[in-house]
Amino acid sequence: MAEQTQVIAEVRDDEKSAGPEKLTIAVLSGDLERALAAFMLATTGASMGMEVNMFFTFWGLNIIKKNEGSMRSKGLMRKMLNMMNRGGSKRLKLSRFNMLGMGTWMMKKLMKETHMPSIDEMIVLAKELGVNMIACTTTCGVMGLPSDTTSFRDEVQVMAGAAYFLNEGRKSKVTLFI
Amino acid sequence: MAEQTQVIAEVRDDEKSAGPEKLTIAVLSGDLERALAAFMLATTGASMGMEVNMFFTFWGLNIIKKNEGSMRSKGLMRKMLNMMNRGGSKRLKLSRFNMLGMGTWMMKKLMKETHMPSIDEMIVLAKELGVNMIACTTTCGVMGLPSDTTSFRDEVQVMAGAAYFLNEGRKSKVTLFI
Amino acid sequence: MAEQTQVIAEVRDDEKSAGPEKLTIAVLSGDLERALAAFMLATTGASMGMEVNMFFTFWGLNIIKKNEGSMRSKGLMRKMLNMMNRGGSKRLKLSRFNMLGMGTWMMKKLMKETHMPSIDEMIVLAKELGVNMIACTTTCGVMGLPSDTTSFRDEVQVMAGAAYFLNEGRKSKVTLFI
Repeated sequence: MAEQTQVIAEVRDDEKSAGPEKLTIAVLSGDLERALAAFMLATTGASMGMEVNMFFTFWGLNIIKKNEGSMRSKGLMRKMLNMMNRGGSKRLKLSRFNMLGMGTWMMKKLMKETHMPSIDEMIVLAKELGVNMIACTTTCGVMGLPSDTTSFRDEVQVMAGAAYFLNEGRKSKVTLFI
Repeated sequence: MAEQTQVIAEVRDDEKSAGPEKLTIAVLSGDLERALAAFMLATTGASMGMEVNMFFTFWGLNIIKKNEGSMRSKGLMRKMLNMMNRGGSKRLKLSRFNMLGMGTWMMKKLMKETHMPSIDEMIVLAKELGVNMIACTTTCGVMGLPSDTTSFRDEVQVMAGAAYFLNEGRKSKVTLFI
Repeated sequence: MAEQTQVIAEVRDDEKSAGPEKLTIAVLSGDLERALAAFMLATTGASMGMEVNMFFTFWGLNIIKKNEGSMRSKGLMRKMLNMMNRGGSKRLKLSRFNMLGMGTWMMKKLMKETHMPSIDEMIVLAKELGVNMIACTTTCGVMGLPSDTTSFRDEVQVMAGAAYFLNEGRKSKVTLFI
């Protein structure tokens, strides 16, 4: 964490400038409904003119993992973890009533019927609206992922740690932990 | 989301007036313990003089659903979803140690013993204390509910979307996502 | 809740003094990954110079329970609840992929490999960095615990309720519910 504190000290300088209001969202969960809520809030915030940061950590990293599921991680245990926990926006499940996939399938059906975009479409939309998507460096290791952006979709350009999240949070009007 | 942004622009005007401090709580979870935490915070905040908004979304809608479980929703899939996921404050379960209901039953027993009000009583108390309970319009559809207040208890008078929540959050001293 | 409001009124006086920025974290979850996230944020915040309060409630009380698992609670139901839900930082499990302990074991292994401290070490570190750890008085009862600090580790010195949390939250730059 020592090296992260360094980053913060530099970032602090620019906070005097007013700029747009900020919304910062930490996404720890990989449940379909929480991922949907996070992206609804992020895209709505961005369309209201807010500067939005989404910080993905632990199971939340699954949401932004490449759907192809590249198996580049080293070591047997990491490979196993990656196999069990493949991730990717299309594999997210409801936390309840998944019922071997039937509940999740039904909700996805109702999402289409009510014209709600899929997670995949929301990620693209978020990027277009300027939402900044960040993958947590520290938790990549324990999730069996290499600590760089190659595991993630192209929409994710930044890797950072807890200090980055807290520093954004300090400057935000709304900070959420999902 | 475009029409919601409209609403926000109008609401923004009144924010210059000082008024009481605000507490805004998004309730996504329908787990008994999270529902209890949300209402404890809401009623405590209101009794401290804060202006409290609770915004129910996804499984959180179960908490404020009518206990009778009206089956007015249209279409087979919605009907099925409603049957599996009946909701209502009396059907909430613990996220852990539910053990076919025994864990939940034991906690409810201990709540009585320690004179903690039930969720049902907390909803009534919250209303009396002026807590504003809002059902999320956008997620009613995917939860198989009609997008109006008829699915919900009388204490719920407002339906709104993510923009409403974020706009309240921007003006709040404390914003929580539960 | 009436007696808690009293406490708040007294605390409010000291808020005019500027002092360091505050970070307030409510920890309701007892899942390993959420406990890790909470302590990473708390220790990072403290090392950034923030004044950090962690408020443990419901399953979060498991994180700060003594690992020995003293069975001092009175009444059969409390004893049973305590037996099923023994708690302690070393017994926390992942919310997903626990797989009878194998997933949790693998993540703990990867934590060691990537030099991430254990929850136990993080609690000690947090204390050293001046993080204030508070156990929720109100929920001790329903979790089958005596409402005093004897159930908890020595690092926990304060017992308080929802009003304490909200009052800290009001004065904080970042307030999270985990």
